[in-house]
Amino acid sequence: MTVRLAVIGGDGIGPEVVAEARKVLDVVLPGVDATEYDLGAARYHRTGEVLPESVLQELAQQDVILLGAVGDPSMPSGVLERGLLLKLRFTFDHYINLRPSKLWEGTVSPLAGVAPGEIDMVVVREGTEGLYCGAGGVVRQGTPAEVATEESLNTRYGAERAIRDAFERAMARPRRKVTLVHKNNVLVNAGHMWSRAFADVAAEYPEVETEYQHVDAAAMYLVTNPQRYDVIVTDNLFGDILTDIAAAVTGGIGLAASGNINPTREYPSMFEPVHGSAPDIAGQGVADPAAAILSTALLLDHLGRSEDARRVEAAVGAEVAGRTPGEPVKTAAVGDAVAARLAD
Amino acid sequence: MTVRLAVIGGDGIGPEVVAEARKVLDVVLPGVDATEYDLGAARYHRTGEVLPESVLQELAQQDVILLGAVGDPSMPSGVLERGLLLKLRFTFDHYINLRPSKLWEGTVSPLAGVAPGEIDMVVVREGTEGLYCGAGGVVRQGTPAEVATEESLNTRYGAERAIRDAFERAMARPRRKVTLVHKNNVLVNAGHMWSRAFADVAAEYPEVETEYQHVDAAAMYLVTNPQRYDVIVTDNLFGDILTDIAAAVTGGIGLAASGNINPTREYPSMFEPVHGSAPDIAGQGVADPAAAILSTALLLDHLGRSEDARRVEAAVGAEVAGRTPGEPVKTAAVGDAVAARLAD
Ligand SMILES: CC(C)[C@H](C(=O)O)[C@@H](O)C(=O)O
Ligand SMILES: CC(C)[C@H](C(=O)O)[C@@H](O)C(=O)O
Repeated sequence: MTVRLAVIGGDGIGPEVVAEARKVLDVVLPGVDATEYDLGAARYHRTGEVLPESVLQELAQQDVILLGAVGDPSMPSGVLERGLLLKLRFTFDHYINLRPSKLWEGTVSPLAGVAPGEIDMVVVREGTEGLYCGAGGVVRQGTPAEVATEESLNTRYGAERAIRDAFERAMARPRRKVTLVHKNNVLVNAGHMWSRAFADVAAEYPEVETEYQHVDAAAMYLVTNPQRYDVIVTDNLFGDILTDIAAAVTGGIGLAASGNINPTREYPSMFEPVHGSAPDIAGQGVADPAAAILSTALLLDHLGRSEDARRVEAAVGAEVAGRTPGEPVKTAAVGDAVAARLAD
Repeated sequence: MTVRLAVIGGDGIGPEVVAEARKVLDVVLPGVDATEYDLGAARYHRTGEVLPESVLQELAQQDVILLGAVGDPSMPSGVLERGLLLKLRFTFDHYINLRPSKLWEGTVSPLAGVAPGEIDMVVVREGTEGLYCGAGGVVRQGTPAEVATEESLNTRYGAERAIRDAFERAMARPRRKVTLVHKNNVLVNAGHMWSRAFADVAAEYPEVETEYQHVDAAAMYLVTNPQRYDVIVTDNLFGDILTDIAAAVTGGIGLAASGNINPTREYPSMFEPVHGSAPDIAGQGVADPAAAILSTALLLDHLGRSEDARRVEAAVGAEVAGRTPGEPVKTAAVGDAVAARLAD
């Protein structure tokens, strides 16, 4: 079966890191049917288009999407985020936003005394609900009487499928532990709904250890004791924040991969590094493509090619372990080295 | 003028740390007219009452409130939080939730290579709006078709007064920098309203350096580069999360003080340590009262007694600097030592 791959390089360093990820895919997934899509700030400035309906239709026909990064300081905040990135996540029902964090050999945590191997967690962030749904409004804009609302929509259906996914992942991991993070002492409607769904699903997985934490406590523990986490399941906004902390304590977003996954395969899933377009270093060939390459490992997992996924992770791990701390990376050299390792 | 002080010890270690804070107040603010209020989990279990209207009326007549901590695992999540703590914050219009974070001499940050003195920031958290307002609902509870909403209500009025307060505080600090944190690329209604209010207020303070960060980026920078912050202004929920990260990188919540402030003095302001009731260590005399004592410094600031406030901070600083890292503290000994220093 030929895999149809949509490639959205995007802006800034996006196309650079995606090029390296494709070198790796060419080795482990030869004969992939790739189509490049020109989307992002550059296209918006050229044509005024964010995501034409025809492109959305085409993307829907693909098996998987590889995205670099979109965004640029020249863009009004929210236009590409809501109109492109979130549009894809919502249209393709990417209800699992998967974000593993691991302190790799050869990387240095900003946390004192935390050694490689000690942090190894995955956040299952719900991807299609909560405050990200885009409900809300503004009245009397620009006046002293202005009021703005944001509505968080949450369903048992949406919470439960994310929670179930987290438990399935925990079952496949040695520690078998799931932490639910919410803020049910303040957000008593959505929070307690999540807690009820969590309790019900947990009952089906007696082998899995469970705990609940408020988001503020979890944010603190991610700094003081990140080793305690195995699988975290949480809502869209909390997941956004917690995964950046998790990335920070594991050496920064240079290695943070993510998958926007629709496990039903009804729509294409999308894989992207957590980092942004970093326009300040674009075009210099110094962006670390590790996160983009690691995102292809998640892509391979999604295609059922877990063995290849583990090989990609191991190759990236070996490359990272061989780095001299403090020495700047060379984008193409990293991709070449990882691809060469895999070709052997 | 006699200061009318309401004291809510609360649950767990709350009464223990408040007792030490009062030792300190007795020295710097002799003749204070203190009234103890029995509120929290214990009262709830005894009487079913969370915050009787008559008590709320009495509290409204006080000048300031000193609160230890409320909460206990025996309580259903949200009852005391919404019914007592948030009820007080909202009724008394505590629109400034003030949370300084400083890496004190003698404390150890979990961050490698960050030395005492390097981190010194204050978060101005809006305290009366956003997702904390308690709007939302649940339908079809307990069924697969359950839906839960949470509504975030935000006003220009509320954002602006918090932002203005942040700029005033920045003007009184050497670095004069204010960072606005929100998520205006996703929460385009409330986020852009905050950004507009921020831009307008900033124009009145040309001496103050300003920046904007998304909450996920700020959460990361608080770990990778907390030194960069001076004053952060943000909404209620983001402030909740960010201040726990700030506490974590400055050695934990043992030293994190907070003020729920109504600068108009129309209602009493309330001062409380950020930590909770910690029932696991209650009654052992080992809770660190430093955060409660530092909260009295914020109380003194609010009463216009800034010199006394600085003296209290210096006395706590000296006590903390004299600690042997890793050695458990003795609650009463800390209070005695700080009070003795101030009495000299
Ligand atoms: C760019 C933004 C919309 C996005 C999000 O908030 O999900 C990003 O922060 C992420 O985490 O992928
Ligand atoms: C207990 C809870 C309601 C409270 C909050 O969320 O504000 C606490 O976390 C805090 O930060 O003071």
